[in-house]
Amino acid sequence: MPGRSHPRFDALTVPKASDVLASEVRERILSGEFTEGMALPPERQLVEQTGLSRATVREALRILEVEKLLQIRPGRGGGAFVHRPGRESLASTVQLVIRGQRIRLEALHETREAIEPTCAALAAARRTDRDLAELDAAQRDLVEAGDDIPRFLRANIDWHSAVARASDNELLIGFMSALSQSIYAATNLEQFMDAEIRSITARAHAKITDAIRDQDGPAAMRRMARHVCGFADAAARVDRRGQVELSGPAED
Amino acid sequence: MPGRSHPRFDALTVPKASDVLASEVRERILSGEFTEGMALPPERQLVEQTGLSRATVREALRILEVEKLLQIRPGRGGGAFVHRPGRESLASTVQLVIRGQRIRLEALHETREAIEPTCAALAAARRTDRDLAELDAAQRDLVEAGDDIPRFLRANIDWHSAVARASDNELLIGFMSALSQSIYAATNLEQFMDAEIRSITARAHAKITDAIRDQDGPAAMRRMARHVCGFADAAARVDRRGQVELSGPAED
Repeated sequence: MPGRSHPRFDALTVPKASDVLASEVRERILSGEFTEGMALPPERQLVEQTGLSRATVREALRILEVEKLLQIRPGRGGGAFVHRPGRESLASTVQLVIRGQRIRLEALHETREAIEPTCAALAAARRTDRDLAELDAAQRDLVEAGDDIPRFLRANIDWHSAVARASDNELLIGFMSALSQSIYAATNLEQFMDAEIRSITARAHAKITDAIRDQDGPAAMRRMARHVCGFADAAARVDRRGQVELSGPAED
Repeated sequence: MPGRSHPRFDALTVPKASDVLASEVRERILSGEFTEGMALPPERQLVEQTGLSRATVREALRILEVEKLLQIRPGRGGGAFVHRPGRESLASTVQLVIRGQRIRLEALHETREAIEPTCAALAAARRTDRDLAELDAAQRDLVEAGDDIPRFLRANIDWHSAVARASDNELLIGFMSALSQSIYAATNLEQFMDAEIRSITARAHAKITDAIRDQDGPAAMRRMARHVCGFADAAARVDRRGQVELSGPAED
């Protein structure tokens, strides 16, 4: 029948079977229906129950393994086990996105300046004795590092992590960990951390630690804000001129 | 030879071939060596060059497709194309982590209180005419919504997104988008947004928009801090008592 006009179809996007299955399992893990450590049915049974091919079921499980939502253990007693994403996964995911999008160092500093003073204020409100012991240990290490710059840098990171942990806010902890790792990776710390900056850093940390110990949130927040802004300014100056100035913490 | 002692081996973790290939491609995409839209060699050639099996190469490409680092297009002119993660991917990744880790609503509010005042301060420093037009349009919509709550809520989200965009900090934009979507999803907004709260919200937005227009960073920051704390407090009260009080913005 020439001339008869047919109805038109647009190109369709058909979801892949493995994506459909992976999405369902992902949803049930994220909603909490599937709990940590729970074993999924064996592959054979999944094939039977879903009506999908063995290759499709395997691909779906593999996708979830890559997303770290399943652990697949081979052999006897093996199988696919539910793994809910943990704290490290937050930090490493955010770090991956920071790299993948080539976020500018300036944007990282600005975000840190937004977040870390709040961490310090929350730490002052919530710090436990254990948090204080960790802060003091990191601070002792920082002071004792002397000219051992790698040791100083480790103690510096330990102290900032201890502040974040003391905030007891799992999202801020993850963001701070991703931010500081990305910032330190992008900063020439060996050149940056000369004797003067190390001594200014030690004094700033001591004063912030005191405020956290005294549960003085506003002082902890204000001192941390000054400390991280000073770091960002000094880092920007090193980048520009290959040398550093850093104003000391004002007495407050 | 009985009695001869053999050297001992510990259990080894052997990386999967597909993970090794996927990691290499991922690294070359994230480092910027593989640029957006670049085509990978055809499957056959990858098999030849890597010495891996066809199934392994396919699995590696599939992993990267799931991670949204490759787009795989079928048919003539098809193949695997590099796709660098974009802004939406930051927000959706962070949102996935927030859900997966069941981050408490209180932690979301605290993080927002850390971030959004800084967004407002940066917006005041950097806003373009286009940013201002978007803020004004969202504000107009909010006021005109009247009793149309869904329209009010859309205008509310539009306004907060416009503030974040005006900050011109891609990391803060992504974090804010993930946070506000997660917070709104967890808040019973229909019940929450009664006439009084809608009017308080409209006045707070107007005053913050003015500060951003006047490039007054400190005022924008202070007013936004008060606005988001008021929201968090009121939301907590709704959760506890099923009703709301919200103090109006102080004159400043």
